[in-house]
Amino acid sequence: MTRFYSKRDLHFQLFENQNCLELTQLPYFADHSEVTFKLVLDSAEQIAEKSLRPLLTEMDRNEPQLIDGKIRIHPGMKAIIRQFGEDGWINALFPYEEGGQQLPWTIHITAGFIFQAANYSASVFPFLTTGASNLIRTFGSKDLIEKFTPNLFSGLWQGTMALTEPDAGSSLSDISTTAFTTEKSGVFKIKGQKIYISAGDHDACENIIHLMLARIQGAPAGTKGISLFVVPKIRISGESNDVLTQGIYHKMGYKGAPIAHLMIGSNDDCEGYLVGEANQGLKYMFQMMNEARLGVGMNAVGIASAAYQASLAYAKERPQGRKVGEKNLSQAQVPIIEHADVKRMLLFQKSAVEGSLALLIYCAILSDKIAHEENEVRKNEMELLLDLLTPIAKSYPSEMGVQSTSAAVQVLGGAGYTTDFPVEQYYREARIHPIHEGTTGIHGLDLLGRKVLIQEGLGWKLFEKEIESTIDNSKELSDLDSIRQTFELQLKKFNHAAAQILFKMNQGPEKFLADATLFLEATGIVCIGWMWLKQAVSSQKALNTKESEQDFYFGKIETARYFMEYELPKINGLIERFHSNTYPTIAMRKEWF
Amino acid sequence: MTRFYSKRDLHFQLFENQNCLELTQLPYFADHSEVTFKLVLDSAEQIAEKSLRPLLTEMDRNEPQLIDGKIRIHPGMKAIIRQFGEDGWINALFPYEEGGQQLPWTIHITAGFIFQAANYSASVFPFLTTGASNLIRTFGSKDLIEKFTPNLFSGLWQGTMALTEPDAGSSLSDISTTAFTTEKSGVFKIKGQKIYISAGDHDACENIIHLMLARIQGAPAGTKGISLFVVPKIRISGESNDVLTQGIYHKMGYKGAPIAHLMIGSNDDCEGYLVGEANQGLKYMFQMMNEARLGVGMNAVGIASAAYQASLAYAKERPQGRKVGEKNLSQAQVPIIEHADVKRMLLFQKSAVEGSLALLIYCAILSDKIAHEENEVRKNEMELLLDLLTPIAKSYPSEMGVQSTSAAVQVLGGAGYTTDFPVEQYYREARIHPIHEGTTGIHGLDLLGRKVLIQEGLGWKLFEKEIESTIDNSKELSDLDSIRQTFELQLKKFNHAAAQILFKMNQGPEKFLADATLFLEATGIVCIGWMWLKQAVSSQKALNTKESEQDFYFGKIETARYFMEYELPKINGLIERFHSNTYPTIAMRKEWF
Repeated sequence: MTRFYSKRDLHFQLFENQNCLELTQLPYFADHSEVTFKLVLDSAEQIAEKSLRPLLTEMDRNEPQLIDGKIRIHPGMKAIIRQFGEDGWINALFPYEEGGQQLPWTIHITAGFIFQAANYSASVFPFLTTGASNLIRTFGSKDLIEKFTPNLFSGLWQGTMALTEPDAGSSLSDISTTAFTTEKSGVFKIKGQKIYISAGDHDACENIIHLMLARIQGAPAGTKGISLFVVPKIRISGESNDVLTQGIYHKMGYKGAPIAHLMIGSNDDCEGYLVGEANQGLKYMFQMMNEARLGVGMNAVGIASAAYQASLAYAKERPQGRKVGEKNLSQAQVPIIEHADVKRMLLFQKSAVEGSLALLIYCAILSDKIAHEENEVRKNEMELLLDLLTPIAKSYPSEMGVQSTSAAVQVLGGAGYTTDFPVEQYYREARIHPIHEGTTGIHGLDLLGRKVLIQEGLGWKLFEKEIESTIDNSKELSDLDSIRQTFELQLKKFNHAAAQILFKMNQGPEKFLADATLFLEATGIVCIGWMWLKQAVSSQKALNTKESEQDFYFGKIETARYFMEYELPKINGLIERFHSNTYPTIAMRKEWF
Repeated sequence: MTRFYSKRDLHFQLFENQNCLELTQLPYFADHSEVTFKLVLDSAEQIAEKSLRPLLTEMDRNEPQLIDGKIRIHPGMKAIIRQFGEDGWINALFPYEEGGQQLPWTIHITAGFIFQAANYSASVFPFLTTGASNLIRTFGSKDLIEKFTPNLFSGLWQGTMALTEPDAGSSLSDISTTAFTTEKSGVFKIKGQKIYISAGDHDACENIIHLMLARIQGAPAGTKGISLFVVPKIRISGESNDVLTQGIYHKMGYKGAPIAHLMIGSNDDCEGYLVGEANQGLKYMFQMMNEARLGVGMNAVGIASAAYQASLAYAKERPQGRKVGEKNLSQAQVPIIEHADVKRMLLFQKSAVEGSLALLIYCAILSDKIAHEENEVRKNEMELLLDLLTPIAKSYPSEMGVQSTSAAVQVLGGAGYTTDFPVEQYYREARIHPIHEGTTGIHGLDLLGRKVLIQEGLGWKLFEKEIESTIDNSKELSDLDSIRQTFELQLKKFNHAAAQILFKMNQGPEKFLADATLFLEATGIVCIGWMWLKQAVSSQKALNTKESEQDFYFGKIETARYFMEYELPKINGLIERFHSNTYPTIAMRKEWF
């Protein structure tokens, strides 16, 4: 079986490039160690290889179907979901007293990367349940926790996040699903519809528990009037709860996971249980949103990793053509990995996958630290930094996942376009990530319109400081001089341009935000450049202190060089926009198209 | 029905932005006029709308299957192929005395654009037959012409181009299919296998006529020993010709067209008929190759056009969110086309589609002129220019087709990822074009390693001269000053960098060609920038002389501005490579990955 991720790289990211063992200094994680972390990851690899991976193609070719009002999914999923429950994956993050393992989220999301690389569709079921149960246990009453979480933790029930509606996709403030008070406190009658609900209905679990946003009748307009409810498909009493599966979406990829269109309370008989306080729903949801968004980034890297490994294996095996300048046709053909342009496409993938992984693990460690930090100033700073990095860590891997899987297809050529190889599936699956959990455009607005400005730009300053610190670390390593200098040169241009775009605030929000997506793109490239400098530093230090695994570390440094030479310069095309005062995307009128 | 192309734009490209009526001055085309050209295009639109378009989704969802050694395709294709034959599309280009219409290739390929935009898979069958029969009638004996072309022209038989083999994809010189002489002159026994043969077998035609490359036993190694043969599936006598369909490729998209794996002469009983002289096969094939490559560029634009139109229609209808800065939530949501970032994605698509179309029509007119030019100096110059532009006109539309259809998916958001809308199909179909008829990497090598250098760079100088001439034309139009100045500024940087890359020849072919793909990309962007300046000039002149259709022309000019502001600056990221002397794609070793 072709491998779908690099275990060596994952260990490098966690234990060498970044020190996730820092987390074991925190009391909550004190029982953990490098040994327990690696055990968890090895066990993830086993499930991935034995249970998830074998269903990759089958699940793509046998899509879920809506039959008699119920969605049928691949029959193999039932055992997999149950195994996730029994092995303790769903509640691994939670305290011992809740049956959890007090595992850092960093290790949980990294295990997720392994699952996602093996079979993205299969991997989403347990992670959705973890997200939903986390909302209940964090904000719900003791009663809700006791009633709903045990069967979610065991994998008997499925959890979902039910946000989107036909008229409220990117614009969540327009949610219109309504909750009507009843005589019972905390119990509401819900009415409305929800679309694009992942795992919103299926036959591998006995019940589906929706964490649903709705508006209590009479609540204020907009985001301030949205509340969060637990809405089960079947009530605890065993009665049906008037949640009907109206339709299933057939999709370009990611086909193994059913995406449902739900009608809620069509017969005025759907009960929803308020989570926490009224009108706080979006706030609660957003406290989970950072992790959900980093999760999407990780999904994207998982898929890109599998595609990279598949194209790398092919490039090493497939003979075609001869070295440039070789005129002797009686010479055997060389494997295509010998061609510079093929290496370029492989280096691009390696740089996108490992650079994104470095950033996501950086963010995950930050998130674990924040959850257990008691010093308010330090906590605030870390939160600002993570808030700033989140749209980048969601969007860069998602956008590059599309390009990276495309490069994998290109390495295989005609073969890559056929269903004989898995890369075409990865290409189709990767395309969802720039869309869900906030489109790239929405994250651009979030970064430039909100995150950069908060607390007088403190988050941005912390970001710059972190980059400077990595640059400083690299200065003692003269082998990295050219890599560092190239990075510094581009960084200077970027900082100048970023300052420029802030001046545009004076011209009103439309002009200021017109190129927010490009600003996100440029910031993402710089951010991954920083991650590659960091990886080069860690690798050069290893080369200077030990003699083993030179190939691995040289590969890292050469990929860092590739990034500085090929990817980082792309900011120059974007930067020119920030200096320009011409706005064709505003001037263009709809009747001119 | 959502429209799939803009007729207004097509007429602009042919009759206003470029003057295809020039061709009617040539004796061969003398009977034609604007009226006949428009009649041809209208008739193409009718077939596209009535016959091709209705099968778009069906053909995607009911792939061809190999059953009992024969490929079965969508039953609707038989009537369509016959209609193409009866209406004279297959031999439209050829002289009256051959039953043709002496139609310029420019109009034929433009009609093709309409077919491809309506249903790419369905459109390929007749165009493959035109290509194959053109080889026979140009290089074949009278006997071959009489035996094979009439039934090809009528659509009764299918023509193919059979080049690729398991060990000879990008490296055509490694073809190993062998032709053995027989007692009969011109008749050979063929043995070998061919893969990825489009329309290589199907049940909508009574016979399949392969134009096949093979090596006569004992011929020189490499490209100098390749000959061209007519290899029918069924002999003229009615006997089977030992061409077996070994397999069918299932693909990510482009599913309606069957791609076959053929075994030739497994029972030593396959006859092939030599076309022209021995060992000249690749030369013959390459005389058709320019047109085939421009054809692929056109396919890509066709698909991108359909995706653009679908996303444009959606963006005008779909309400979501409010204008930036609008805080009043009781205001109705606005159609997403009101958002600058959505307009950016639409402008990108419009600029890619119409810019590519302009270039392809420019090339097609050049091709028609070359075919009928008698002055050797002028002919040589036009050939050099077309040879230079061909890798660009194949690759830019192909690469941008992928990005442009991706932007269409993004405009639709979650809906775009579902099979409820056609954009996901366009996205899958577009991905083939950077692969077939030479991968983008191969065209990069062709441009930088060959086309730029031929006749001491004369082709390149002619290219620069053409661009200068458009710049000069724009100078009299002061409304275009800022567009022109931006273009000139970037062009100057590009020319400087292009000169730089030529110096690298001194460092040997590996370094010189390491970034050939990036050179192709940058040249493509500049070339389309030139096409947008040209369109802006034509549009501004129209605005200055007439009062109607202002929306159309303003839209053109604003899209030109978009291109200069958003797309053209991308060369800056590429240019930095040409100035660099660091080569990570060469330095990286395969064991470091």
